[in-house]
Amino acid sequence: MTEYSKLSRAELEALKDELLARYEEYKSLGLKLDMSRGKPGVGQLAESAPLMDVLGSDSDMKSAGGVDCRNYGGFDGLPEVRAIFAEMLGVPVEMVIAGGNASLNLMFDAVAQGVYGGYGCGSWASQGEVKFLCPVPGYDRHFAVTEYFGIKMINVDMTPDGPDMDTVEKLVSSDPAIKGIWCVPMYSNPQGYTYSDETVRRFANLKPAAKDFRIFWDNAYCVHHFRKDRRDSLLNLMDECIKAGNEDLPFIFASTSKISYPGAGVAVMATSKANRVFIDSRLKIQTIGPDKLNHLRHARYFVNAAGIYAHMEKMAKHLEPRFDAVLNMLNSELSGTGAAEWTEPVGGYFVSVDVNEGCAKRVVSLCKEAGVTLTEAGASFPYHNDPKDTNIRLAPSFPSVEELTKAMEIFCLAAKLAAVEKHLA
Amino acid sequence: MTEYSKLSRAELEALKDELLARYEEYKSLGLKLDMSRGKPGVGQLAESAPLMDVLGSDSDMKSAGGVDCRNYGGFDGLPEVRAIFAEMLGVPVEMVIAGGNASLNLMFDAVAQGVYGGYGCGSWASQGEVKFLCPVPGYDRHFAVTEYFGIKMINVDMTPDGPDMDTVEKLVSSDPAIKGIWCVPMYSNPQGYTYSDETVRRFANLKPAAKDFRIFWDNAYCVHHFRKDRRDSLLNLMDECIKAGNEDLPFIFASTSKISYPGAGVAVMATSKANRVFIDSRLKIQTIGPDKLNHLRHARYFVNAAGIYAHMEKMAKHLEPRFDAVLNMLNSELSGTGAAEWTEPVGGYFVSVDVNEGCAKRVVSLCKEAGVTLTEAGASFPYHNDPKDTNIRLAPSFPSVEELTKAMEIFCLAAKLAAVEKHLA
Repeated sequence: MTEYSKLSRAELEALKDELLARYEEYKSLGLKLDMSRGKPGVGQLAESAPLMDVLGSDSDMKSAGGVDCRNYGGFDGLPEVRAIFAEMLGVPVEMVIAGGNASLNLMFDAVAQGVYGGYGCGSWASQGEVKFLCPVPGYDRHFAVTEYFGIKMINVDMTPDGPDMDTVEKLVSSDPAIKGIWCVPMYSNPQGYTYSDETVRRFANLKPAAKDFRIFWDNAYCVHHFRKDRRDSLLNLMDECIKAGNEDLPFIFASTSKISYPGAGVAVMATSKANRVFIDSRLKIQTIGPDKLNHLRHARYFVNAAGIYAHMEKMAKHLEPRFDAVLNMLNSELSGTGAAEWTEPVGGYFVSVDVNEGCAKRVVSLCKEAGVTLTEAGASFPYHNDPKDTNIRLAPSFPSVEELTKAMEIFCLAAKLAAVEKHLA
Repeated sequence: MTEYSKLSRAELEALKDELLARYEEYKSLGLKLDMSRGKPGVGQLAESAPLMDVLGSDSDMKSAGGVDCRNYGGFDGLPEVRAIFAEMLGVPVEMVIAGGNASLNLMFDAVAQGVYGGYGCGSWASQGEVKFLCPVPGYDRHFAVTEYFGIKMINVDMTPDGPDMDTVEKLVSSDPAIKGIWCVPMYSNPQGYTYSDETVRRFANLKPAAKDFRIFWDNAYCVHHFRKDRRDSLLNLMDECIKAGNEDLPFIFASTSKISYPGAGVAVMATSKANRVFIDSRLKIQTIGPDKLNHLRHARYFVNAAGIYAHMEKMAKHLEPRFDAVLNMLNSELSGTGAAEWTEPVGGYFVSVDVNEGCAKRVVSLCKEAGVTLTEAGASFPYHNDPKDTNIRLAPSFPSVEELTKAMEIFCLAAKLAAVEKHLA
């Protein structure tokens, strides 16, 4: 296709008319399609159905160690589910805390504890202004947590190798007000980038000005490959931190939200012995223990990390055609136009599209009017402020391939239309 | 039996020798009995077994409203489980938030939010010293939460009608540093007292000096009657608060921990529309939603409040003989000796015993040496400090009647021995 920048004004006008006519046609269909959130589709959810039969009334409800999972106790979760997570994350089981159904809750509580209690240097609240580094584009719910606590968020550019580490190192080593950084190190949200080995090593070797600086390492997509022939690999941050004598740096998070059920999975946090003293001292007061029956259900169903990997191959079969639908449409409709650039991840839950500068809000709005809900423009930036108004996150997992194809026709049309409008403006 | 105070020194010495001989006999048995925590026994847990068959892989996993409970969403819980709690607590469903498995977690988070965010008057942390009123004896885990946050705890005496309301009114109306009071209004922990109608009305009509003062109303035992012929009733606090124009005063908590499973139940918080603005603004950031499958499981099993009441009648059959075992032994062994006084509740999970002043630690220690674990002496007071060293909480629910009888023989022996030692000292 011809790049729009090379078209004459007349050609652009003609193209605009043509695009608008097609857009009005789509609008008249009264569609209702949703690509806004990274939700597993019904086919994926069905793969976990056997999980619901693991613990019937005929079960003894007991852990391998004889714990009656129906009763109180065990603030850090069932040993066997902790063991599975330890294997999956490549950390010692002693570092692992298994919680409720939401890793977001574990992250929120870890930030909250920083604010009111702190991690060995007094509460963050008592130390004046507190800042977090936010690789952008990133995950809106991370940014919402730090915004909720009035923590100042500083954008750091993402690259295909991870955050711009020159900037991260410079800021973290010089500013003691910086207490954390939000990371989705594998199949990042929204770009699907996986941090390079060098990036992970540089994280592990950070020399923070603040002793209570922590890396919030949300490994949400650690086993979420969807290609049979290609997959990213992520260096083990904890191993590298231990080598660097920095084992207290990371708070590692994950969950089975996109392995078993988003609404009823198990979340996990892994961190050093010294950090666990802080976290455990809270957890023991905050709860008598998480839902151990759901832990037992997951432990018996998955058995070990290999059980999770096998399960994720089933998930991949649902995800791959959906990503293909999105990527094929982007390639066939937008390649060569200059109207957009996008990532082509081999795992995770998102495709990140950069439309022309100043066009993201317009594209999202055009899509909405035609019945296609996208994640709000700006959502992938702190304070919902995408400085270039360019980034849009596409979430292909929930709709059917047919719905996705329809939604992507409209999305590509909207991206073209916004680009043409911009060239004509 | 003769009151020990009326015995001569020689009689006391003889009695001591006799008690010690019996005590040594028990010690030699190498028993291991636990009356320390309010845990349902295995018979009670078995009553909820059908709950585990409600949601098999053949279920549609959908709420009445069509929500797929496997997926994300619904930060305040499933409508049908909220409706059951609303009926059980006698509050409008709009006030009800259904959460994870632990009401303690809801309470901790509500206090934490007060500390770092506050309820309309700035964070408690920014207001200098913060205080909570603590009716004593009370629940150790409540006191642990306020202690964790460095909140100063002020003892208020309990009476059979509830906390000493003259003191509560005086303090709450005069000291703006007082931000809360911990209440277990029905079958209180540990005494099993239920607040009188007048007490509830006086709570509802409090005129706090602090606008951000809240009543932490932990109605943990609201349906936990164990006598067929006698049961307490509790006036509806929210109704009274609304009448008094004070509907923002209470944070009401409950859970199914002692209805279905302690390890895998559903917890609930109920509060006014204005308070929900504060709470919801946090919850929406803290989590994408609680475990909706467990909500659905409970909603389908219990159906409505009547379903819960019927279930609790089954529970009562397990609890009544256990309480009888404890109370009968106290009556037969200690009545008339002056060695102890105790409560005779008709619901809840505890019997509260006051041994002679200065003897509680000694009794708990004597029991421990003979293989009977009791809740630590002092645990029912803030800072683990029972000023008179007199209160001991007995938890009859978990052991078998046979074990309880054995444990109570030792307990009564220990109470007598400590009393005799005191008279001789």
